Amino acid sequence: MVARWQPSVVDHQQPGGWVVAHCKQHFLADGNGVLFPREWLKKQELPVVAEHGIGHFDGDAVYLLELAEPFEMASCSWQSLRQFMLQGDADTFKLLSYATQVGTWAAQHRFCGSCAGAMQHIAGERAMHCPRCALHHYPRLSPSMIVLVTRGDEVLLARSPRFVAGVYSTLAGFVEAGESVEACVAREVREEVGVEVKNLQYLGSQGWPFPHSLMLGFHAEYAGGEIVMQADEIEDAQWFSVHRLPPLPASRSIARYLIDVYVAQRLGMPEPVLPS
Amino acid sequence: MVARWQPSVVDHQQPGGWVVAHCKQHFLADGNGVLFPREWLKKQELPVVAEHGIGHFDGDAVYLLELAEPFEMASCSWQSLRQFMLQGDADTFKLLSYATQVGTWAAQHRFCGSCAGAMQHIAGERAMHCPRCALHHYPRLSPSMIVLVTRGDEVLLARSPRFVAGVYSTLAGFVEAGESVEACVAREVREEVGVEVKNLQYLGSQGWPFPHSLMLGFHAEYAGGEIVMQADEIEDAQWFSVHRLPPLPASRSIARYLIDVYVAQRLGMPEPVLPS
Repeated sequence: MVARWQPSVVDHQQPGGWVVAHCKQHFLADGNGVLFPREWLKKQELPVVAEHGIGHFDGDAVYLLELAEPFEMASCSWQSLRQFMLQGDADTFKLLSYATQVGTWAAQHRFCGSCAGAMQHIAGERAMHCPRCALHHYPRLSPSMIVLVTRGDEVLLARSPRFVAGVYSTLAGFVEAGESVEACVAREVREEVGVEVKNLQYLGSQGWPFPHSLMLGFHAEYAGGEIVMQADEIEDAQWFSVHRLPPLPASRSIARYLIDVYVAQRLGMPEPVLPS
Repeated sequence: MVARWQPSVVDHQQPGGWVVAHCKQHFLADGNGVLFPREWLKKQELPVVAEHGIGHFDGDAVYLLELAEPFEMASCSWQSLRQFMLQGDADTFKLLSYATQVGTWAAQHRFCGSCAGAMQHIAGERAMHCPRCALHHYPRLSPSMIVLVTRGDEVLLARSPRFVAGVYSTLAGFVEAGESVEACVAREVREEVGVEVKNLQYLGSQGWPFPHSLMLGFHAEYAGGEIVMQADEIEDAQWFSVHRLPPLPASRSIARYLIDVYVAQRLGMPEPVLPS
């Protein structure tokens, strides 16, 4: 089965197609959704920063208008990517996940970070180029580990102050220059909750467009230490029995998948599949 | 055992310590190596772009001078990071791997990509900040998959035109926005050599500072298709018997590790350990 959404580099000099309007992880939407007839939307007076052809949805070309700020339009509203993650259909969420990353890249690479000169888009590639410095910049992905620490029938879950009230999740953190993902898991778990881990097992990965993470998911067994929470980062952290879990993250997230897999293993249930 | 090299954010307002001088993946070196007394080197007239405290070597603070161009100095030469990877000791290579990534980040984030304004270093963090756009930029890591495709006693190895003459290696490629690492493996193998894979197995990861990749290593089984080489990218690709392998990549690389592990498995030998 061919996916409804197929990312690709589409020449934005071509006319027609659909367009999404993006600004800072929000999309313009009306009663028909987020795809607008492109020629029509471009006739409005919009603060366009960049335009990119981003792929095809049901075979039709889709473009992105990256905007400097949101604008008011009759019968339209600006909706956050997070809303689409929680409530939208999976194909639209994939389209918007890609669009937000292309848009963020386009907005953040208008000028060269080395010389402040204007960068140029390389036709046919997802790349910006500085003619003076000969620098190329592609959309940034920030690799992050995400890990469920387990101890028999217990799992270690924590709350960040940024979470929805009541929700507990797995631990996560960005990989740093010079370290392996495995070293990052050990370091982040130690920093965030003060415990040591062993027997890391990689389970899978997921692009996470808030704004451009690539989540690398692991199970790890508890190896020692008492929970000591990192100030500012961790509001609460506890061992929870797989039989009495708190409210958990959204079912589309790899965080939830890591938890669901382990619970299924402990309870002898069929294991879930990671949403692609 | 504590590693000789420990990265950290060191306040560069402090005096003293050692310094490495970096420019475009090359380091200043003399008969004593790459670490110079910092106060002495800073008295030379150097084209300094940025200075950062990057960690400790044998307990002594180490700083980085990022330079706009290499400079001539008596009894010194500029040596490439690749030379240190091939010939240097592991601790020095780790230090320089980190230094090159901090230096590249410092050089490439002097100006804000959104507004072209000067960015500011945030004290105590490895972050640059644009006061106007409220943007933070951390050192970029580019996640890449690297995979050994196997078929019984055969492994699929390929040559890029950039390789040392005669050397064959595993396939590799950058993860793109919106895709999982597993989807990237399938896509890149298809693009580079035209074959399909199945039964992916993650083996480990390695920071690869040329200039800032994070390699995510897999084995994958051949699932179908004939080799069709991607123009420009792949100069040659062949199935090699584990009993008759061509010249292989450097022993410190995860590429070599992926090959060595599989060969050890097929030959019933002890498996090697991934260099950290």
